[in-house]
Amino acid sequence: MYNRVLLAVDLTDESIKVANKAATLCKSTGAELTIVHVIESLNYAYGGDVPIDITDIQTQLQETAKERIAILEAQLNIPLQESCITQGGIESEIHRIAEEKKVDLIIVGSHCRHGLALLLGSTANGVLHGAPCDVLAVKVTKD
Amino acid sequence: MYNRVLLAVDLTDESIKVANKAATLCKSTGAELTIVHVIESLNYAYGGDVPIDITDIQTQLQETAKERIAILEAQLNIPLQESCITQGGIESEIHRIAEEKKVDLIIVGSHCRHGLALLLGSTANGVLHGAPCDVLAVKVTKD
Repeated sequence: MYNRVLLAVDLTDESIKVANKAATLCKSTGAELTIVHVIESLNYAYGGDVPIDITDIQTQLQETAKERIAILEAQLNIPLQESCITQGGIESEIHRIAEEKKVDLIIVGSHCRHGLALLLGSTANGVLHGAPCDVLAVKVTKD
Repeated sequence: MYNRVLLAVDLTDESIKVANKAATLCKSTGAELTIVHVIESLNYAYGGDVPIDITDIQTQLQETAKERIAILEAQLNIPLQESCITQGGIESEIHRIAEEKKVDLIIVGSHCRHGLALLLGSTANGVLHGAPCDVLAVKVTKD
């Protein structure tokens, strides 16, 4: 059914639940799993108009992401094809990697949103819009 | 992984592709499949301000939907739990039935959109927004 699955994680506490579902799906369909985490580049988020040197912050974000993704990998009991950390716009990076890796399914967590975030739309909605393949949005609820 | 799957179809020519994917997923996970088609009620679509009697049109839409859903059922080689045709707002009806049937996955086709539809967003996006469970958007491309 699916051969290559791309799991996009935001590395919050709920990521493991989404990752476990991805792992189960990959096991039952025999698909290869790749994990991606996108660090939204600060330049990108603030329209390139950042008056301070943000190199240190970006490096720190990268280090934290590396540690967290290693913990996540260790918790999954399936062989991983690859995991990568990338920087840029969240949706566009996920779409780019999905095309590059020729995946046939993107799995992403779907958070309940309140207030302003509800109007802006979730990452899952953004990923769905213009995705090159199927998208599974895994409902994430805080315990 | 999933126990009850709700497949929402618009009964266009592409529905069979989405339905086949749903059937494969249900087979591999052992989930029960229910199919739903929502006839967008004309009253609903036009804000209740329809100056002519639309009963005949609605009956005709219902009949066409019944025929098409029967054809779709016949093409799937898995036991169906149920299929239902309902009337109202597309997203709200899908969410209502998903809750009523306690499904854990909604599968919906995701069309490429152009022009105005791109701005308005797809049904898949609408279904994702506020869904009570996971949503799998199956990419549909015209051959």
